[in-house]
Amino acid sequence: MLNSYTKEDKVMLAIDCIIFGFDEEGLKILLIKRDFEPERGKWSLIGGFLKVNETLDEAASRILYTLTGVHDIYMEQFYTYSEIDRDPVERTLSVSYYALIDIERHNEELIENYNASWHSIAEVPKLIFDHDKMLDKGLKRLRRRTSIVPIGFNLLPEKFTMLQLQKLYEAILDKPLDKRNFINKINSMDILIKLNEKDMSSSTKGSFLYMFDGEKYNAKLTDNFYLKL
Amino acid sequence: MLNSYTKEDKVMLAIDCIIFGFDEEGLKILLIKRDFEPERGKWSLIGGFLKVNETLDEAASRILYTLTGVHDIYMEQFYTYSEIDRDPVERTLSVSYYALIDIERHNEELIENYNASWHSIAEVPKLIFDHDKMLDKGLKRLRRRTSIVPIGFNLLPEKFTMLQLQKLYEAILDKPLDKRNFINKINSMDILIKLNEKDMSSSTKGSFLYMFDGEKYNAKLTDNFYLKL
Repeated sequence: MLNSYTKEDKVMLAIDCIIFGFDEEGLKILLIKRDFEPERGKWSLIGGFLKVNETLDEAASRILYTLTGVHDIYMEQFYTYSEIDRDPVERTLSVSYYALIDIERHNEELIENYNASWHSIAEVPKLIFDHDKMLDKGLKRLRRRTSIVPIGFNLLPEKFTMLQLQKLYEAILDKPLDKRNFINKINSMDILIKLNEKDMSSSTKGSFLYMFDGEKYNAKLTDNFYLKL
Repeated sequence: MLNSYTKEDKVMLAIDCIIFGFDEEGLKILLIKRDFEPERGKWSLIGGFLKVNETLDEAASRILYTLTGVHDIYMEQFYTYSEIDRDPVERTLSVSYYALIDIERHNEELIENYNASWHSIAEVPKLIFDHDKMLDKGLKRLRRRTSIVPIGFNLLPEKFTMLQLQKLYEAILDKPLDKRNFINKINSMDILIKLNEKDMSSSTKGSFLYMFDGEKYNAKLTDNFYLKL
Protein backbone atom coordinates (compact mmCIF):
# COMPACT_ATOMS: atom_id res chain seq x y z
CA MET A 1 0.00 0.00 0.00
CA LEU A 2 1.28 3.38 -0.97
CA ASN A 3 1.30 4.99 2.40
CA SER A 4 2.67 2.27 4.62
CA TYR A 5 6.05 2.78 6.24
CA THR A 6 8.39 0.05 4.98
CA LYS A 7 12.01 -0.51 5.86
CA GLU A 8 12.81 -1.49 2.29
CA ASP A 9 12.34 2.01 1.01
CA LYS A 10 14.92 3.73 3.16
CA VAL A 11 17.72 5.50 1.36
CA MET A 12 21.09 7.06 2.12
CA LEU A 13 21.12 10.82 2.14
CA ALA A 14 24.27 12.74 1.30
CA ILE A 15 24.83 16.44 1.73
CA ASP A 16 27.06 18.33 -0.69
CA CYS A 17 28.20 21.87 0.02
CA ILE A 18 28.96 24.28 -2.81
CA ILE A 19 31.15 26.86 -1.11
CA PHE A 20 31.83 29.86 -3.32
CA GLY A 21 34.56 32.20 -2.18
CA PHE A 22 35.53 35.69 -3.23
CA ASP A 23 38.91 37.40 -2.96
CA GLU A 24 40.84 39.91 -5.04
CA GLU A 25 41.54 37.23 -7.65
CA GLY A 26 37.85 36.65 -8.23
CA LEU A 27 35.26 33.95 -7.67
CA LYS A 28 36.40 30.52 -6.47
CA ILE A 29 34.99 27.22 -5.30
CA LEU A 30 36.14 25.13 -2.33
CA LEU A 31 36.87 21.52 -3.34
CA ILE A 32 38.26 18.50 -1.56
CA LYS A 33 40.38 15.63 -2.87
CA ARG A 34 38.48 12.47 -2.09
CA ASP A 35 40.49 9.96 -0.04
CA PHE A 36 38.30 6.88 -0.26
CA GLU A 37 36.76 4.68 -2.94
CA PRO A 38 35.08 5.02 -5.29
CA GLU A 39 36.73 7.89 -7.15
CA ARG A 40 39.62 8.16 -4.67
CA GLY A 41 41.93 11.04 -5.58
CA LYS A 42 39.29 12.89 -7.61
CA TRP A 43 37.95 16.34 -6.74
CA SER A 44 34.63 16.61 -5.01
CA LEU A 45 32.32 19.15 -3.46
CA ILE A 46 32.44 19.12 0.33
CA GLY A 47 30.19 16.16 1.05
CA GLY A 48 29.17 13.56 3.62
CA PHE A 49 26.19 11.65 4.92
CA LEU A 50 23.22 12.65 7.04
CA LYS A 51 23.08 11.06 10.49
CA VAL A 52 19.73 9.97 11.85
CA ASN A 53 19.88 12.39 14.77
CA GLU A 54 20.55 15.63 12.90
CA THR A 55 18.73 17.98 10.55
CA LEU A 56 20.06 18.72 7.08
CA ASP A 57 21.27 22.17 8.15
CA GLU A 58 23.15 20.63 11.07
CA ALA A 59 24.66 17.96 8.84
CA ALA A 60 25.81 20.52 6.29
CA SER A 61 27.60 22.57 8.98
CA ARG A 62 29.14 19.48 10.57
CA ILE A 63 30.40 18.13 7.24
CA LEU A 64 31.87 21.43 6.16
CA TYR A 65 33.60 21.88 9.51
CA THR A 66 34.87 18.31 9.78
CA LEU A 67 36.27 18.18 6.26
CA THR A 68 37.67 21.67 5.91
CA GLY A 69 37.72 23.46 9.28
CA VAL A 70 35.54 26.26 7.88
CA HIS A 71 32.72 27.13 10.26
CA ASP A 72 30.09 29.69 11.19
CA ILE A 73 28.95 30.44 7.68
CA TYR A 74 25.40 30.68 6.46
CA MET A 75 24.60 27.99 3.92
CA GLU A 76 21.36 27.76 2.02
CA GLN A 77 19.79 24.50 0.95
CA PHE A 78 18.89 24.54 -2.69
CA TYR A 79 18.22 21.24 -4.44
CA THR A 80 17.93 17.50 -3.79
CA TYR A 81 19.44 15.21 -6.44
CA SER A 82 17.93 11.77 -6.92
CA GLU A 83 19.09 10.16 -10.15
CA ILE A 84 19.07 6.39 -9.55
CA ASP A 85 22.72 5.76 -10.37
CA ARG A 86 24.27 9.02 -9.24
CA ASP A 87 26.33 7.15 -6.62
CA PRO A 88 27.67 3.83 -7.97
CA VAL A 89 27.97 2.17 -4.53
CA GLU A 90 24.43 2.45 -3.29
CA ARG A 91 21.23 4.40 -3.92
CA THR A 92 22.05 7.76 -2.37
CA LEU A 93 20.21 11.03 -2.76
CA SER A 94 22.07 14.25 -2.17
CA VAL A 95 20.83 17.51 -0.75
CA SER A 96 22.98 20.39 -1.96
CA TYR A 97 23.76 23.54 -0.02
CA TYR A 98 25.50 26.65 -1.18
CA ALA A 99 27.18 29.70 0.31
CA LEU A 100 29.30 32.64 -0.78
CA ILE A 101 32.03 33.66 1.67
CA ASP A 102 34.98 35.99 2.01
CA ILE A 103 38.03 33.80 1.43
CA GLU A 104 40.40 35.98 3.48
CA ARG A 105 38.14 35.73 6.48
CA HIS A 106 38.10 31.93 6.49
CA ASN A 107 41.47 30.96 5.07
CA GLU A 108 43.06 30.42 8.46
CA GLU A 109 40.37 27.91 9.37
CA LEU A 110 41.22 25.62 6.46
CA ILE A 111 42.77 22.41 7.76
CA GLU A 112 45.65 21.60 5.47
CA ASN A 113 45.85 17.84 5.77
CA TYR A 114 42.26 17.45 4.58
CA ASN A 115 43.20 18.55 1.08
CA ALA A 116 40.49 21.18 0.80
CA SER A 117 41.48 24.02 -1.49
CA TRP A 118 40.13 26.95 -3.47
CA HIS A 119 39.86 26.67 -7.26
CA SER A 120 39.15 29.51 -9.65
CA ILE A 121 35.69 29.15 -11.18
CA ALA A 122 37.34 29.40 -14.61
CA GLU A 123 39.54 26.35 -13.93
CA VAL A 124 37.46 23.83 -12.04
CA PRO A 125 38.70 20.25 -12.50
CA LYS A 126 36.31 17.44 -13.45
CA LEU A 127 34.30 16.57 -10.33
CA ILE A 128 32.97 13.20 -9.12
CA PHE A 129 29.45 11.87 -9.65
CA ASP A 130 26.95 14.61 -10.56
CA HIS A 131 28.91 17.33 -8.77
CA ASP A 132 29.58 19.20 -12.04
CA LYS A 133 25.84 19.52 -12.47
CA MET A 134 25.46 20.69 -8.88
CA LEU A 135 28.15 23.32 -9.29
CA ASP A 136 26.53 24.52 -12.50
CA LYS A 137 23.13 24.88 -10.86
CA GLY A 138 24.74 26.53 -7.83
CA LEU A 139 26.44 29.11 -10.03
CA LYS A 140 23.17 29.90 -11.78
CA ARG A 141 21.46 30.27 -8.43
CA LEU A 142 24.23 32.53 -7.15
CA ARG A 143 23.95 34.77 -10.23
CA ARG A 144 20.18 34.96 -10.04
CA ARG A 145 20.43 35.64 -6.32
CA THR A 146 22.74 38.53 -7.10
CA SER A 147 19.84 40.13 -8.98
CA ILE A 148 17.33 39.63 -6.18
CA VAL A 149 19.21 40.53 -3.02
CA PRO A 150 22.15 42.87 -2.57
CA ILE A 151 25.47 41.06 -2.25
CA GLY A 152 28.62 42.24 -0.59
CA PHE A 153 28.04 42.91 3.08
CA ASN A 154 30.27 40.08 4.22
CA LEU A 155 32.50 40.00 1.18
CA LEU A 156 34.05 43.45 1.22
CA PRO A 157 35.96 45.35 3.90
CA GLU A 158 33.83 47.67 6.04
CA LYS A 159 34.88 50.63 3.87
CA PHE A 160 35.28 50.01 0.16
CA THR A 161 35.49 51.83 -3.14
CA MET A 162 32.88 51.66 -5.89
CA LEU A 163 35.48 49.84 -7.99
CA GLN A 164 35.82 47.08 -5.38
CA LEU A 165 32.06 46.61 -5.36
CA GLN A 166 31.99 46.53 -9.15
CA LYS A 167 34.74 43.90 -9.21
CA LEU A 168 32.71 41.73 -6.83
CA TYR A 169 29.69 41.85 -9.11
CA GLU A 170 31.85 41.25 -12.18
CA ALA A 171 33.40 38.20 -10.54
CA ILE A 172 30.03 36.69 -9.64
CA LEU A 173 28.34 37.51 -12.95
CA ASP A 174 31.48 36.64 -14.93
CA LYS A 175 31.19 39.62 -17.25
CA PRO A 176 32.59 43.15 -17.44
CA LEU A 177 30.16 45.86 -16.35
CA ASP A 178 29.99 49.41 -17.61
CA LYS A 179 31.28 51.67 -14.84
CA ARG A 180 28.82 54.54 -15.17
CA ASN A 181 25.86 52.22 -15.59
CA PHE A 182 26.93 50.17 -12.57
CA ILE A 183 27.27 53.25 -10.36
CA ASN A 184 23.82 54.50 -11.38
CA LYS A 185 22.15 51.19 -10.67
CA ILE A 186 23.91 50.67 -7.36
CA ASN A 187 23.00 54.19 -6.29
CA SER A 188 19.38 53.61 -7.23
CA MET A 189 19.38 50.72 -4.74
CA ASP A 190 19.98 53.27 -1.99
CA ILE A 191 21.92 50.94 0.32
CA LEU A 192 25.28 52.75 0.42
CA ILE A 193 26.61 55.53 2.62
CA LYS A 194 29.15 57.70 0.84
CA LEU A 195 31.92 58.64 3.29
CA ASN A 196 33.79 61.90 3.43
CA GLU A 197 36.97 59.91 3.07
CA LYS A 198 39.08 58.65 0.19
CA ASP A 199 41.15 55.63 -0.67
CA MET A 200 44.36 57.19 -2.04
CA SER A 201 46.10 53.93 -3.01
CA SER A 202 44.84 53.63 -6.57
CA SER A 203 45.20 57.17 -7.93
CA THR A 204 46.45 60.59 -6.92
CA LYS A 205 42.90 61.93 -7.05
CA GLY A 206 41.78 59.09 -4.84
CA SER A 207 38.46 57.23 -4.74
CA PHE A 208 35.64 57.90 -2.32
CA LEU A 209 34.97 55.18 0.23
CA TYR A 210 31.55 53.74 0.90
CA MET A 211 29.89 51.69 3.61
CA PHE A 212 26.74 49.62 3.47
CA ASP A 213 23.77 51.14 5.25
CA GLY A 214 22.96 48.08 7.39
CA GLU A 215 19.33 48.95 7.94
CA LYS A 216 18.51 49.67 4.30
CA TYR A 217 20.59 46.68 3.17
CA ASN A 218 18.65 44.32 5.41
CA ALA A 219 15.34 45.79 4.27
CA LYS A 220 16.31 45.02 0.66
CA LEU A 221 17.04 41.43 1.61
CA THR A 222 13.35 40.79 2.19
CA ASP A 223 12.00 43.42 -0.18
CA ASN A 224 10.98 42.78 -3.78
CA PHE A 225 14.32 44.14 -4.79
CA TYR A 226 15.65 43.73 -8.29
CA LEU A 227 18.89 44.78 -9.88
CA LYS A 228 19.46 44.11 -13.55
CA LEU A 229 23.11 44.57 -14.42
CA MET B 1 34.38 7.25 9.95
CA LEU B 2 32.49 10.10 8.40
CA ASN B 3 32.41 8.93 4.86
CA SER B 4 31.64 5.25 5.20
CA TYR B 5 28.33 3.97 3.93
CA THR B 6 26.41 2.52 6.87
CA LYS B 7 22.98 0.94 6.87
CA GLU B 8 22.16 2.59 10.17
CA ASP B 9 21.96 6.01 8.63
CA LYS B 10 19.27 5.33 6.09
CA VAL B 11 16.11 7.37 6.33
CA MET B 12 12.60 7.40 4.93
CA LEU B 13 11.95 10.02 2.29
CA ALA B 14 8.48 11.43 1.79
CA ILE B 15 7.36 13.65 -1.06
CA ASP B 16 4.70 16.29 -0.48
CA CYS B 17 3.06 18.11 -3.37
CA ILE B 18 1.73 21.63 -2.95
CA ILE B 19 -0.74 21.92 -5.82
CA PHE B 20 -2.03 25.45 -6.26
CA GLY B 21 -5.01 25.86 -8.52
CA PHE B 22 -6.63 28.88 -10.11
CA ASP B 23 -10.21 29.36 -11.25
CA GLU B 24 -12.64 32.26 -11.37
CA GLU B 25 -13.08 32.06 -7.60
CA GLY B 26 -9.38 32.65 -7.02
CA LEU B 27 -6.35 30.76 -5.74
CA LYS B 28 -6.86 27.35 -4.15
CA ILE B 29 -4.86 24.46 -2.80
CA LEU B 30 -5.45 20.73 -3.41
CA LEU B 31 -5.64 18.77 -0.14
CA ILE B 32 -6.41 15.20 0.77
CA LYS B 33 -8.11 13.74 3.83
CA ARG B 34 -5.67 11.29 5.34
CA ASP B 35 -7.12 7.78 5.73
CA PHE B 36 -4.48 6.13 7.89
CA GLU B 37 -2.78 6.69 11.24
CA PRO B 38 -1.33 8.83 12.58
CA GLU B 39 -3.54 11.87 12.03
CA ARG B 40 -6.26 9.88 10.26
CA GLY B 41 -9.07 12.15 9.07
CA LYS B 42 -6.91 15.27 9.07
CA TRP B 43 -6.09 17.32 5.98
CA SER B 44 -2.75 16.86 4.31
CA LEU B 45 -0.78 17.94 1.29
CA ILE B 46 -0.65 15.28 -1.42
CA GLY B 47 2.07 13.06 -0.02
CA GLY B 48 3.67 9.62 -0.13
CA PHE B 49 7.01 7.86 0.06
CA LEU B 50 9.90 7.57 -2.35
CA LYS B 51 10.53 4.08 -3.74
CA VAL B 52 14.10 2.91 -4.18
CA ASN B 53 13.74 2.56 -7.94
CA GLU B 54 12.42 6.02 -8.81
CA THR B 55 13.68 9.60 -8.86
CA LEU B 56 12.03 12.31 -6.79
CA ASP B 57 10.35 13.79 -9.88
CA GLU B 58 8.93 10.38 -10.78
CA ALA B 59 7.75 9.81 -7.23
CA ALA B 60 6.03 13.19 -7.10
CA SER B 61 4.12 12.48 -10.33
CA ARG B 62 3.20 8.97 -9.22
CA ILE B 63 1.97 10.11 -5.81
CA LEU B 64 -0.10 12.95 -7.24
CA TYR B 65 -1.67 10.66 -9.83
CA THR B 66 -2.30 7.76 -7.46
CA LEU B 67 -3.90 9.88 -4.76
CA THR B 68 -5.86 12.34 -6.85
CA GLY B 69 -6.00 11.26 -10.49
CA VAL B 70 -4.38 14.54 -11.57
CA HIS B 71 -1.60 13.98 -14.08
CA ASP B 72 0.63 15.56 -16.70
CA ILE B 73 1.42 18.69 -14.76
CA TYR B 74 4.80 20.29 -14.29
CA MET B 75 5.85 20.27 -10.65
CA GLU B 76 8.96 21.95 -9.35
CA GLN B 77 10.96 20.65 -6.42
CA PHE B 78 11.60 23.35 -3.90
CA TYR B 79 12.69 22.35 -0.40
CA THR B 80 13.62 19.34 1.71
CA TYR B 81 12.34 19.32 5.29
CA SER B 82 14.33 17.47 7.93
CA GLU B 83 13.23 18.39 11.45
CA ILE B 84 13.91 15.33 13.62
CA ASP B 85 10.35 14.86 14.90
CA ARG B 86 8.39 16.13 11.93
CA ASP B 87 6.83 12.65 11.48
CA PRO B 88 5.96 11.04 14.83
CA VAL B 89 6.15 7.46 13.53
CA GLU B 90 9.68 7.35 12.21
CA ARG B 91 12.46 9.68 11.11
CA THR B 92 11.23 10.83 7.72
CA LEU B 93 12.49 13.70 5.60
CA SER B 94 10.18 15.27 3.08
CA VAL B 95 10.96 16.77 -0.30
CA SER B 96 8.31 19.27 -1.27
CA TYR B 97 7.14 20.03 -4.79
CA TYR B 98 4.85 22.74 -6.01
CA ALA B 99 2.78 23.56 -9.07
CA LEU B 100 0.17 26.04 -10.19
CA ILE B 101 -2.54 24.63 -12.46
CA ASP B 102 -5.80 25.55 -14.11
CA ILE B 103 -8.48 23.92 -11.98
CA GLU B 104 -11.03 23.64 -14.82
CA ARG B 105 -8.57 21.76 -16.96
CA HIS B 106 -7.91 19.09 -14.32
CA ASN B 107 -11.18 18.87 -12.41
CA GLU B 108 -12.44 15.86 -14.36
CA GLU B 109 -9.33 13.91 -13.45
CA LEU B 110 -9.96 14.19 -9.72
CA ILE B 111 -10.89 10.78 -8.34
CA GLU B 112 -13.73 11.34 -5.92
CA ASN B 113 -13.29 8.46 -3.54
CA TYR B 114 -9.78 9.57 -2.67
CA ASN B 115 -11.11 12.62 -0.83
CA ALA B 116 -8.89 15.09 -2.62
CA SER B 117 -10.47 18.51 -2.87
CA TRP B 118 -9.75 22.16 -3.56
CA HIS B 119 -9.67 24.63 -0.68
CA SER B 120 -9.60 28.39 -0.96
CA ILE B 121 -6.22 29.76 0.15
CA ALA B 122 -8.12 32.05 2.54
CA GLU B 123 -9.75 29.08 4.30
CA VAL B 124 -7.16 26.34 4.54
CA PRO B 125 -7.85 23.94 7.45
CA LYS B 126 -5.10 23.00 9.91
CA LEU B 127 -2.77 20.56 8.13
CA ILE B 128 -0.84 17.57 9.52
CA PHE B 129 2.82 17.57 10.59
CA ASP B 130 4.76 20.54 9.19
CA HIS B 131 2.51 20.90 6.14
CA ASP B 132 1.33 24.36 7.23
CA LYS B 133 4.94 25.50 7.07
CA MET B 134 5.37 23.88 3.65
CA LEU B 135 2.27 25.59 2.31
CA ASP B 136 3.45 28.91 3.67
CA LYS B 137 6.86 28.58 2.02
CA GLY B 138 5.20 27.37 -1.18
CA LEU B 139 2.97 30.44 -1.27
CA LYS B 140 5.95 32.73 -0.80
CA ARG B 141 7.79 30.94 -3.59
CA LEU B 142 4.78 31.21 -5.87
CA ARG B 143 4.49 34.95 -5.24
CA ARG B 144 8.18 35.56 -5.75
CA ARG B 145 8.06 33.43 -8.88
CA THR B 146 5.27 35.63 -10.18
CA SER B 147 7.74 38.52 -10.12
CA ILE B 148 10.47 36.65 -11.93
CA VAL B 149 8.69 34.78 -14.72
CA PRO B 150 5.45 35.64 -16.45
CA ILE B 151 2.48 33.61 -15.18
CA GLY B 152 -0.69 32.78 -16.99
CA PHE B 153 0.00 30.81 -20.14
CA ASN B 154 -1.65 27.65 -18.85
CA LEU B 155 -4.03 29.34 -16.46
CA LEU B 156 -6.11 31.50 -18.78
CA PRO B 157 -8.14 30.69 -21.90
CA GLU B 158 -6.28 31.19 -25.18
CA LYS B 159 -7.93 34.61 -25.57
CA PHE B 160 -8.47 36.65 -22.45
CA THR B 161 -9.20 40.19 -21.31
CA MET B 162 -6.79 42.38 -19.39
CA LEU B 163 -9.18 42.14 -16.45
CA GLN B 164 -8.90 38.34 -16.41
CA LEU B 165 -5.11 38.61 -16.36
CA GLN B 166 -5.27 41.17 -13.57
CA LYS B 167 -7.57 38.92 -11.53
CA LEU B 168 -5.05 36.08 -11.89
CA TYR B 169 -2.24 38.23 -10.52
CA GLU B 170 -4.47 39.58 -7.76
CA ALA B 171 -5.40 36.05 -6.72
CA ILE B 172 -1.78 34.92 -6.56
CA LEU B 173 -0.48 38.04 -4.85
CA ASP B 174 -3.57 38.29 -2.61
CA LYS B 175 -3.91 42.02 -3.03
CA PRO B 176 -5.88 44.43 -5.23
CA LEU B 177 -3.85 45.98 -8.05
CA ASP B 178 -4.34 49.37 -9.59
CA LYS B 179 -5.81 48.84 -13.08
CA ARG B 180 -3.87 51.49 -14.99
CA ASN B 181 -0.60 50.64 -13.27
CA PHE B 182 -1.13 46.94 -13.96
CA ILE B 183 -1.83 47.51 -17.65
CA ASN B 184 1.29 49.67 -18.01
CA LYS B 185 3.53 47.11 -16.34
CA ILE B 186 2.11 44.18 -18.25
CA ASN B 187 2.50 46.08 -21.52
CA SER B 188 6.10 46.90 -20.67
CA MET B 189 6.76 43.14 -20.47
CA ASP B 190 5.90 42.93 -24.18
CA ILE B 191 4.53 39.38 -24.11
CA LEU B 192 0.95 40.03 -25.19
CA ILE B 193 -0.68 40.27 -28.60
CA LYS B 194 -3.68 42.60 -28.65
CA LEU B 195 -6.38 41.12 -30.88
CA ASN B 196 -8.75 43.04 -33.10
CA GLU B 197 -11.55 41.34 -31.26
CA LYS B 198 -13.62 42.10 -28.17
CA ASP B 199 -15.23 40.22 -25.33
CA MET B 200 -18.73 41.78 -25.21
CA SER B 201 -19.98 39.87 -22.16
CA SER B 202 -18.88 42.33 -19.48
CA SER B 203 -19.93 45.70 -20.93
CA THR B 204 -21.65 47.23 -23.93
CA LYS B 205 -18.37 48.83 -25.00
CA GLY B 206 -16.68 45.45 -24.70
CA SER B 207 -13.10 44.61 -23.68
CA PHE B 208 -10.27 43.87 -26.08
CA LEU B 209 -9.02 40.31 -26.10
CA TYR B 210 -5.34 39.38 -25.81
CA MET B 211 -3.21 36.33 -26.46
CA PHE B 212 0.21 35.48 -25.13
CA ASP B 213 3.02 35.81 -27.66
CA GLY B 214 4.44 32.32 -27.16
CA GLU B 215 7.91 33.14 -28.41
CA LYS B 216 8.36 36.29 -26.34
CA TYR B 217 6.72 34.63 -23.34
CA ASN B 218 9.17 31.74 -23.44
CA ALA B 219 12.11 34.10 -23.84
CA LYS B 220 11.05 35.89 -20.66
CA LEU B 221 10.97 32.58 -18.81
CA THR B 222 14.75 32.33 -19.03
CA ASP B 223 15.50 36.03 -19.22
CA ASN B 224 16.36 38.24 -16.25
CA PHE B 225 12.75 39.31 -16.28
CA TYR B 226 11.29 41.25 -13.37
CA LEU B 227 7.83 42.55 -12.73
CA LYS B 228 7.16 44.51 -9.57
CA LEU B 229 3.41 44.88 -9.02
